[in-house]
Amino acid sequence: MFQLLTTCGKARQGRLSTPHGDVETPMFMPIATKGAVKTLSSEDMRALGAQILLSNTYHLLLRPGLAAMERLGGLHRFMEWNGPILTDSGGYQVFSLARLNKTTEEGVLFQSHIDGSRILLTPELSMGMQRAIGSDIAMLFDDVAAGDSTRERYEQAMDRSLRWAARCRSAFDAGADAPASAVRRQLFGIVQGGVHEDLRARSADGLRSIGFDGYAIGGLSVGEPREDSYRIADFVCGRLPEDKPRYFMGGGMPEEIVHYVRSGVDLFDCVLPTRNARHGTLFVWNLDPEAWHPVREPEHADFYRRLHITNEACAFADEPVDSHCGCSACRTVSRAYLRHLFQSGELLGMRLATIHNLHFYLRLMECIRVDISPSA
Amino acid sequence: MFQLLTTCGKARQGRLSTPHGDVETPMFMPIATKGAVKTLSSEDMRALGAQILLSNTYHLLLRPGLAAMERLGGLHRFMEWNGPILTDSGGYQVFSLARLNKTTEEGVLFQSHIDGSRILLTPELSMGMQRAIGSDIAMLFDDVAAGDSTRERYEQAMDRSLRWAARCRSAFDAGADAPASAVRRQLFGIVQGGVHEDLRARSADGLRSIGFDGYAIGGLSVGEPREDSYRIADFVCGRLPEDKPRYFMGGGMPEEIVHYVRSGVDLFDCVLPTRNARHGTLFVWNLDPEAWHPVREPEHADFYRRLHITNEACAFADEPVDSHCGCSACRTVSRAYLRHLFQSGELLGMRLATIHNLHFYLRLMECIRVDISPSA
Repeated sequence: MFQLLTTCGKARQGRLSTPHGDVETPMFMPIATKGAVKTLSSEDMRALGAQILLSNTYHLLLRPGLAAMERLGGLHRFMEWNGPILTDSGGYQVFSLARLNKTTEEGVLFQSHIDGSRILLTPELSMGMQRAIGSDIAMLFDDVAAGDSTRERYEQAMDRSLRWAARCRSAFDAGADAPASAVRRQLFGIVQGGVHEDLRARSADGLRSIGFDGYAIGGLSVGEPREDSYRIADFVCGRLPEDKPRYFMGGGMPEEIVHYVRSGVDLFDCVLPTRNARHGTLFVWNLDPEAWHPVREPEHADFYRRLHITNEACAFADEPVDSHCGCSACRTVSRAYLRHLFQSGELLGMRLATIHNLHFYLRLMECIRVDISPSA
Repeated sequence: MFQLLTTCGKARQGRLSTPHGDVETPMFMPIATKGAVKTLSSEDMRALGAQILLSNTYHLLLRPGLAAMERLGGLHRFMEWNGPILTDSGGYQVFSLARLNKTTEEGVLFQSHIDGSRILLTPELSMGMQRAIGSDIAMLFDDVAAGDSTRERYEQAMDRSLRWAARCRSAFDAGADAPASAVRRQLFGIVQGGVHEDLRARSADGLRSIGFDGYAIGGLSVGEPREDSYRIADFVCGRLPEDKPRYFMGGGMPEEIVHYVRSGVDLFDCVLPTRNARHGTLFVWNLDPEAWHPVREPEHADFYRRLHITNEACAFADEPVDSHCGCSACRTVSRAYLRHLFQSGELLGMRLATIHNLHFYLRLMECIRVDISPSA
């Protein structure tokens, strides 16, 4: 269930309702790949004000596995997170992580990157696993083409993904429980087709004719020039229904998120804030976010910078990472201390940096929402 | 400043006052080697109810260094911990960690294990560094003999340590600020002498004649039979003044701590709870700690067990690590989830396990204090 509340140009402010609560959009989803946002607990995520987490079907299928997810009552209970969860279908991971993957019309046969066991991941198994996980928003299982594929390969993958989309829809609906509340679990489609507008159009139209609860833009932010990604995202948004949420998968840098919002995207996920944090790179405001209008002002990328905390310049810096930030790291420790933790290999450094970077991304989304709709 | 409040046999319940607050004894000091208890923040330590932390002069001298400690206002401010801090002098670390160490009457010349630079650590430099750190309780810098040394080497080290003890006392007193409060920074002596009672007696008597604010028992828990350690600790406690705190350095297992308390020890530190946690080994109560009398009951080691969280038996265990524990890990996650975090290499696992094990140790000390003095 999605309510579009306000627009500002193509930018949209809305509310996505799930069995585990509402999500104010535009929103960023921190990534809990294996059932934990790296270095953080669910308590930390609540303290950060995260509204929805993303987890991965592929990783949870390999460990702890489908049987464990069922016996332990699903991922919400497992990781003690009572808010909404969206799950990737595994399509991208069998393509990027698994060994010896072989795609047939039935599904993808692959070897686990953990123990080498062979698993055939099909649209039906992906739906079954996402049901065992109890994800509030399941993603369809698609055939993923590499970022540098030929047009023929993109077309083949897109066509097969449409056939799999119908199988996902059937399997998802067959497995749907009688709704415990008015809000049911949802299934999102994924628009594919590389940087080819005609393929993207066929993908979007095909998915719409099957009918999904939301639509993702997949296969971008995979190495193509940024202008291509901007152009395709804008094009796809124009082909999608107004009344369903739009999710840009796997992107991006802060200025990219602002750009996609201005094209009409509602949901984001990305490893950048957490991965950068673990390498000691922190996002820092160049302006007072309270006084900033990311959607109404002309677009620019100068609103933030990246601080490498291990730089010598931080050695004696008795000041917080970011004077505009109210995260628990900036409220308590200095750059000098955080640098010391990284230099000394203390894991606390990664944890504090992760808290800061996620706070930055969530604050960015809040700035965006408030700029679109001052009452948001 | 130490007040002995109650005794029960040889066991003592007291209060150690420092410039950063009071410590109820017997107490366990979590180890913040490099200015952080591994995986935890100072906020976590406050939530755990830790009353005092231990940090290391050697590690902080090498990084961030004396100049940084001075410029950044000392360790309390650096790590945002406003409670008491005790610091090791570096004597043990130059012996166990540094390369090419060479001991002369002046001090220990060693190579940094980080960058190979040569440093001469003397009693005076150790006192100066502990002053820069701002430790509430400094330890004297001693000559440490290996655990399997000959009697001659123990005697040589003990005699030299006594000469260094006098230099430490002078340097410490010369560097003492006019007290900002009624409670001054304190300097503890360290009784050495291996498992030889006559050497231990000479060491204790020599230190007492110089006069220290507290007395540590060093050089035990280094591989000798447990009976020897028990015997020597008991012997040394008998040679120490009643009105000063006694600190057993580097020990030990929970049943050892109970034993040493029963011999009259007040303070402990040990890597066991935190190091075990990082390897997935958790301390679990075998009894209800509320109904247990560790000092008044006959001594036994059955009050706890160690749980290896990666065991297959935990795979589907939808129960907390310890049903008698109220730590934030036991309140929120299951054994199955914690196992999953360790199996998946998620650092959150180490963090939750560390919180649990420190909670166990701090609870153990609370049980001990309440058993000695029901009002403690």
